[in-house]
Amino acid sequence: TQAWLAGDHYKWRAMRTHGVDESYCSGKKSDWEKFEQWAATVPFTMRNPLYHWTHLELMRYFGVNALLGPQTAFSIFSECAEKLQSPGYRVRDLLRKMKVQILCTTNDPIDDLFFHKQICAEGFEILVLPTFRPDRAMQVDEPGRFREYLADLEKVTGMDIYSFQRFLDALRSRHDYFAQHGCVSSDHGLAGIDSVPCTAGEMDKIFNQLINGLILQEEQCIKFRSFMLHQLAQWDWEKDWVQQYHLGAIRNNNSRMLLQQGPDSGWDSMGDALSAKAISFFLDRLDREGQLAKTILYNVNPAHNAMLAAMIGNFNDGSRRGKMQWGSAWWFLDQRQGMTEQLNALSNIGLLSAFVGMITDSRSFLSYPRHEYFRRILCDLFGQEVERGELPNDLPWIGKLIKDICYYNAWDYFNWPNDTRLDKRILDT
Amino acid sequence: TQAWLAGDHYKWRAMRTHGVDESYCSGKKSDWEKFEQWAATVPFTMRNPLYHWTHLELMRYFGVNALLGPQTAFSIFSECAEKLQSPGYRVRDLLRKMKVQILCTTNDPIDDLFFHKQICAEGFEILVLPTFRPDRAMQVDEPGRFREYLADLEKVTGMDIYSFQRFLDALRSRHDYFAQHGCVSSDHGLAGIDSVPCTAGEMDKIFNQLINGLILQEEQCIKFRSFMLHQLAQWDWEKDWVQQYHLGAIRNNNSRMLLQQGPDSGWDSMGDALSAKAISFFLDRLDREGQLAKTILYNVNPAHNAMLAAMIGNFNDGSRRGKMQWGSAWWFLDQRQGMTEQLNALSNIGLLSAFVGMITDSRSFLSYPRHEYFRRILCDLFGQEVERGELPNDLPWIGKLIKDICYYNAWDYFNWPNDTRLDKRILDT
Amino acid sequence: TQAWLAGDHYKWRAMRTHGVDESYCSGKKSDWEKFEQWAATVPFTMRNPLYHWTHLELMRYFGVNALLGPQTAFSIFSECAEKLQSPGYRVRDLLRKMKVQILCTTNDPIDDLFFHKQICAEGFEILVLPTFRPDRAMQVDEPGRFREYLADLEKVTGMDIYSFQRFLDALRSRHDYFAQHGCVSSDHGLAGIDSVPCTAGEMDKIFNQLINGLILQEEQCIKFRSFMLHQLAQWDWEKDWVQQYHLGAIRNNNSRMLLQQGPDSGWDSMGDALSAKAISFFLDRLDREGQLAKTILYNVNPAHNAMLAAMIGNFNDGSRRGKMQWGSAWWFLDQRQGMTEQLNALSNIGLLSAFVGMITDSRSFLSYPRHEYFRRILCDLFGQEVERGELPNDLPWIGKLIKDICYYNAWDYFNWPNDTRLDKRILDT
Repeated sequence: TQAWLAGDHYKWRAMRTHGVDESYCSGKKSDWEKFEQWAATVPFTMRNPLYHWTHLELMRYFGVNALLGPQTAFSIFSECAEKLQSPGYRVRDLLRKMKVQILCTTNDPIDDLFFHKQICAEGFEILVLPTFRPDRAMQVDEPGRFREYLADLEKVTGMDIYSFQRFLDALRSRHDYFAQHGCVSSDHGLAGIDSVPCTAGEMDKIFNQLINGLILQEEQCIKFRSFMLHQLAQWDWEKDWVQQYHLGAIRNNNSRMLLQQGPDSGWDSMGDALSAKAISFFLDRLDREGQLAKTILYNVNPAHNAMLAAMIGNFNDGSRRGKMQWGSAWWFLDQRQGMTEQLNALSNIGLLSAFVGMITDSRSFLSYPRHEYFRRILCDLFGQEVERGELPNDLPWIGKLIKDICYYNAWDYFNWPNDTRLDKRILDT
Repeated sequence: TQAWLAGDHYKWRAMRTHGVDESYCSGKKSDWEKFEQWAATVPFTMRNPLYHWTHLELMRYFGVNALLGPQTAFSIFSECAEKLQSPGYRVRDLLRKMKVQILCTTNDPIDDLFFHKQICAEGFEILVLPTFRPDRAMQVDEPGRFREYLADLEKVTGMDIYSFQRFLDALRSRHDYFAQHGCVSSDHGLAGIDSVPCTAGEMDKIFNQLINGLILQEEQCIKFRSFMLHQLAQWDWEKDWVQQYHLGAIRNNNSRMLLQQGPDSGWDSMGDALSAKAISFFLDRLDREGQLAKTILYNVNPAHNAMLAAMIGNFNDGSRRGKMQWGSAWWFLDQRQGMTEQLNALSNIGLLSAFVGMITDSRSFLSYPRHEYFRRILCDLFGQEVERGELPNDLPWIGKLIKDICYYNAWDYFNWPNDTRLDKRILDT
Repeated sequence: TQAWLAGDHYKWRAMRTHGVDESYCSGKKSDWEKFEQWAATVPFTMRNPLYHWTHLELMRYFGVNALLGPQTAFSIFSECAEKLQSPGYRVRDLLRKMKVQILCTTNDPIDDLFFHKQICAEGFEILVLPTFRPDRAMQVDEPGRFREYLADLEKVTGMDIYSFQRFLDALRSRHDYFAQHGCVSSDHGLAGIDSVPCTAGEMDKIFNQLINGLILQEEQCIKFRSFMLHQLAQWDWEKDWVQQYHLGAIRNNNSRMLLQQGPDSGWDSMGDALSAKAISFFLDRLDREGQLAKTILYNVNPAHNAMLAAMIGNFNDGSRRGKMQWGSAWWFLDQRQGMTEQLNALSNIGLLSAFVGMITDSRSFLSYPRHEYFRRILCDLFGQEVERGELPNDLPWIGKLIKDICYYNAWDYFNWPNDTRLDKRILDT
């Protein structure tokens, strides 16, 4: 329950929809009681990815082939709980079992990366790298929270942040710090891309309002985010990082539950709109200035699939293979249909062969089989077309394309440290 | 022709597109002439749901297995006309033939429900219940029409509506009246959800403008609708009704034809936008106030499928199974692809097993086979996945889920009167 | 290379995404070097329509059945280059090989149609007709370019364009001129339809600003385009032309590349929004005034499929079969999935049988097989449903519907000149 259900808002949403009381989701019921309720829900999740994930996870980690349900709940609970206590089921073992080579976490700039350093010092053979995720540095709609964030940032940097320039200097020092500890990419969670022009003078003024606790106007918030996104993108470019944008979620829709449970507990969904012009303007400005880093754009509403598939083509200029990427199906779309639609739109409008694959959304140590799920779906798409005579029956070649998408393209794309511990040929052996 | 073509704008649109003159659609041609033109159009409707509906309706009600077309038009017309005169083809017989147990009509608050009462008094074994549909009470963009509506409302309530509060009192009395006559749900037909905050004082002012015949500004219309939607939702919650919102149509696009034929004669289509934030804000406010009733959201533009599928999860809080529902494919989407896409998105993003199924869009006494159509499509989706090994071959369990979606979930969701005439076990016999 | 790769931004985008330097795309490398790079890219385009198009084109024009790739590049290059020099491979021979009967080009109003007249005078058996495409006459956001356009228009008309009325007179004279040379349709490339009311007086004022080189406000640009679209549509109606609107592209996203290469070299993509209300308002006004010409609406973002499929039904009034058309999948959607989705949405929401088929997007003399591609996809959709028992196994009838969609409907729709050279029965022989 702790390893598998705690914090998994995918499962919570299904349980709540099924009518399970909150005490069994995020609440205080015992581990067994929660597991039992989840087990009772599972047979009702047919056609939802949870049904496949659940059984793939039980099979791959625990060798359990039975279907989870009320009749099997106790035996599966017992068997898995026992195994989790046994050698070979520590977190690091789970990662080894899944043949993980590199694990990238997302971290706020104020993170001191203590555990990353510790893991590295211990010589763990799986690289665990941070990702720079400065969402809080752009959340200026609540001055109180932003000031708390500034205080944290002052603490970790030892800097006195009395001006906008000092704020940038502090963030920049964290960007450098992350790079020193193996970070090769940034990540952003945003409703959309803001790209309204804004002068440094305006930013000074807005920042002063913020540190004085004044609430900003909507337009000022947009300008602040626009400036910061541009600034951060320049730093990413300077370090040859990959910048990632997860776009389109609208968060904390249920304010009653937000108060009870805080964010990220299953009360988010997707917006209806995503401005193509704003994204285009943002990328074009960076490109024009010669500072457009490798970029991955993710959308959460499938209505924006084709738009993003076409958008990346505007800035794929031949300077490197697959420089601009449309990210794999994510969050609500992390299922067979969502992945299929993303892979098909990318195939038709872009170039599937240059895709870096599913490099997002490994929620927990027990959720890696959804990467297998992705690979199976990808193989099935090619396989079906070969069977129908729509692609040549050239399995070595198609196998190469699939290995590229699932492994080598990402290796070539991210500047992961050249580490002898890593066996890049794993797929071929 | 009277029973099958009159008032059916689905068929009219197909005929018009096929180049059939309006006189054969909504016009004055004879019944046979109209039928003949429809029959001549049918072979050209292949791949449109009308093709399947037409033949399923001929088969299920009249036992006609021939394909309708110019050659068969006269014999089918004669056979069906004769049958319609025979015993077993009165409207109530048609409903019995389709095994209807409950029929919910949509009614304006000013409806006196005379026929509902009469049918009830006669002891007809099929329950015929009203649904509260106050669209006209929110159509304030034409003060003249709104004042006509107020006059009607005064007549039916016997109240003098001189203020906004009196308007609310009058509507509320109709809400109560509907409840007394078996109504358990409301329905709204809207382009989108308006949820702009508005004070009671503002509403008084807006209402005074209205009764003085002044044209409102767009912003005032939005505030009026916002206030009313919130108010009506509170009443729905108090009575534990199901509130339904049919969202996204843009109506009366062809003003020439609107003048000739009035509304609902086939000149409507779908908008491009549906604001997720407005829907979220509307639902969140009710939820925060502890007054969010069971809710069904329907969209007419499939571009909004995923957004609504995700939206309902924000307010499914475990308090009751499937409290928030995304309604089945409706109007332009009431066809195989539309239904399949709705069922798939709901499966992937929500929980199909908790779905109340196709409880909308029974256009006429001869159109019930489209509910069979829905059930066949649903079964086919499960069946295909079983055949492909993507779901366990557990037909009793999958059969149970399908029965729930097609029947029992709706029974549990709506507070239909406990009536010994109703045999809830019909499916199992 | 000249015939097949030059100017083909579809191929360029794939090459750039694959990491091929610009010098091999739009640049100065030799024909062989460019061909070699394209050949090296082709195996990586699997699942993109380019993969099918490429091999269908090699097969249909050159009888080449080998797969293009690094190993086969030189032999295929040599074989095709040799054939292109041989009799039977002049441009007119290529058109004959594809059984083209009518070829419609798009032309700016300032085009003198010299080559159209020459081809006609020579008695070439394939009709080559112009299409009136006045995009530049509405591009008023850059006064400098617009004034250049006015100068060109003055030259070709011999008129002095000192006022808005003179501008309209000049354009109208070109509209007449095009009609005299066989033009039967107009075409527009627009982000969306503008339909904001605007008086003639406002237009005079806006036009004076333009010829004085003043930059217009956004609102003025919208009013200008709104007025012009309405005016041009009236002329189209007067001549019984077909008016076409290609909607939703956002162009020149990459300003660095626009400077280097000019427009239409592969830096365009699709917008997110397309206003249903604006389109409805535009069409309704023309319809109300009795001046709505036959109209084809094309969208480039598939998120707008259903909206347009429903929109055309609002103005299909029975006055002629298929008067309002939703155009076939275009540009980024000109592939199997895009075509399938368009055909399915049109089938479900409109009437597939009245569709005029794929009458857009023949990019070059070597790209006609993509019309075969369309026909195969269409046949496959019907065939699959017959095989599944969802349509009657009536091949003569279904064959007739398919011939209508692929050939006869367009013949009946466009007022192509009655020319004895044309054999309308080609399909039946």
